[in-house]
Amino acid sequence: MIGMEKPVLAVLCGDDQARELAESPAVQGIESSAVVRYTGEAGLADALRDADVLFVYDFLSRAVPDAWHAANKLRWLHIASAGVDPVMFPGMRDSDVVLTNSRGVFDDSIAEYVLGVILTFAKDLHGSLDLQRESRWQHRESERIAGREVLVVGTGPIGRAIARMLTAVGMTVSGAGRRARENDPDFGTVHASAVLTDHLPAYDYVVAVAPLTGQTKGMFDSAAFAAMKRTARFVNVGRGELVVTADLVGALRAGELAGAALDVFDTEPLPPESPLWTMKNVLVSPHMSGDFTGWRDTLVEVFADNWSRWQTGAPLRNVVDKELGYVPSDR
Amino acid sequence: MIGMEKPVLAVLCGDDQARELAESPAVQGIESSAVVRYTGEAGLADALRDADVLFVYDFLSRAVPDAWHAANKLRWLHIASAGVDPVMFPGMRDSDVVLTNSRGVFDDSIAEYVLGVILTFAKDLHGSLDLQRESRWQHRESERIAGREVLVVGTGPIGRAIARMLTAVGMTVSGAGRRARENDPDFGTVHASAVLTDHLPAYDYVVAVAPLTGQTKGMFDSAAFAAMKRTARFVNVGRGELVVTADLVGALRAGELAGAALDVFDTEPLPPESPLWTMKNVLVSPHMSGDFTGWRDTLVEVFADNWSRWQTGAPLRNVVDKELGYVPSDR
Repeated sequence: MIGMEKPVLAVLCGDDQARELAESPAVQGIESSAVVRYTGEAGLADALRDADVLFVYDFLSRAVPDAWHAANKLRWLHIASAGVDPVMFPGMRDSDVVLTNSRGVFDDSIAEYVLGVILTFAKDLHGSLDLQRESRWQHRESERIAGREVLVVGTGPIGRAIARMLTAVGMTVSGAGRRARENDPDFGTVHASAVLTDHLPAYDYVVAVAPLTGQTKGMFDSAAFAAMKRTARFVNVGRGELVVTADLVGALRAGELAGAALDVFDTEPLPPESPLWTMKNVLVSPHMSGDFTGWRDTLVEVFADNWSRWQTGAPLRNVVDKELGYVPSDR
Repeated sequence: MIGMEKPVLAVLCGDDQARELAESPAVQGIESSAVVRYTGEAGLADALRDADVLFVYDFLSRAVPDAWHAANKLRWLHIASAGVDPVMFPGMRDSDVVLTNSRGVFDDSIAEYVLGVILTFAKDLHGSLDLQRESRWQHRESERIAGREVLVVGTGPIGRAIARMLTAVGMTVSGAGRRARENDPDFGTVHASAVLTDHLPAYDYVVAVAPLTGQTKGMFDSAAFAAMKRTARFVNVGRGELVVTADLVGALRAGELAGAALDVFDTEPLPPESPLWTMKNVLVSPHMSGDFTGWRDTLVEVFADNWSRWQTGAPLRNVVDKELGYVPSDR
């Protein structure tokens, strides 16, 4: 419409991603109602100048803080991930910019992944694969998962999806979150994360899926691992920085826990020299637990849905509480 | 009691197993009410002479047919497995000897195993383990299991446990059995195995758990594999002889299906020269899917329960229909 100024949308993405995005029907819909500026990390400050909205599609990028000085008109920032820690810095937190995330996209996929690594441990599927490489037939006994105790640390939607799936296959699940409570619909008992170590000795599996905040950073340290059963397995599908990696390596070496399945790391890609690659009973995967085929389309659709809400003045979905560092649960 | 003759119980077991059994409280209970003859394969005929009951604890043994001529007084044979094919030969089938099995012990453990290998395929956990050996970080997209179609071939208690577990995690499950029917409580639709090939094109996962009988032997042949989706995975936790192994190898090489997880083989142990050991997208495990820690105690308890029934004249549990080759379902 003549005379009506279109909003400016900056999209932070890699070069390959810009092509993908431009081909997406959801983005083509947005392009009719916005001036869209695709940018890599180097051009981000220029793209942010006079932009109304920033869509962080490259959610692995750590470039937003350094370009933030140029965000003179920004009103809304959306990130294509569940964790918002890459854009949680003082300048952002103290601004009036509304922050939304992609809560919900990864929940069930990550839950399937967690169940997969738990069954890998219980049925020693990695042991079978090792023996298969040597064409060796060696019968072993395996563990049941039914009745085993699981603690899910993080009671957001991903943690809830994990709890529901593990409960459905007969495991006994509790949660750990900010507030202790009983009768939670997904967890039953939720322990307070502040006293996590008191509760860890009871569990066969401990699953980390908390958001990364000042409170949760490094919560899995030597004291936590020492408190776990020697037969326990630790699963991290949250953020690498929830863990003090050196403490985990030390605890595994000392036999203070029996194994770890790690999809996230404090440095990604995990450096080739990391001892985790070669440790027995450690399963390393490259930050992919939620990334089902079609996930990128779904991420764009989540943003496009919020875009149409923003245009009509409707309330945005998945608004992050910038004090807490995540979208507060209704529960 | 003086003057009352104790029944003679022959127990076919390996040398190691005899020691295990003698230490089991359940067996110690039986020893007070029976003359127990532990025997390996070589002594089986001698042990069977004048025996009332044969407990085939070494269920991998194929020695019973050759010793059968000595079974002059046998009334009951119990086998410590779900599959009874090792003791289904004409002399046994035509006799009045009652046959019971260990139905029920392995059901849920095998169901967990099947879910584990399905998740291994869907999440490419074996691919992650291969990359981990090379310390290589390589992100991939993975598959969801929710909504994927599974055909469970075999509607006995193990197949039903598998169906319930896969349904609980959001998969869509049908069955195949002797009779086609609808509204089955665990499967919904059950197809007739006689026309299996007509139905195979619809499924993402095909799980073989049928008993080995004249009707089921070799049912998974080149026609069956050709009918499957090229993206389908085949899982065998039943018996190796359900499959024409050369046809499976050929179909995998031709890309007619995408993978196979095999816990049972027509020759066990799987010979070192088998191509299955080294084929991409084949997961080999050594006939262990049901063998949770404690399974041997449970197997002895199942026999001891039937032993006390037999002594009091109560109906035995898990009586095999020798025409069908398995315990008929109530359903």
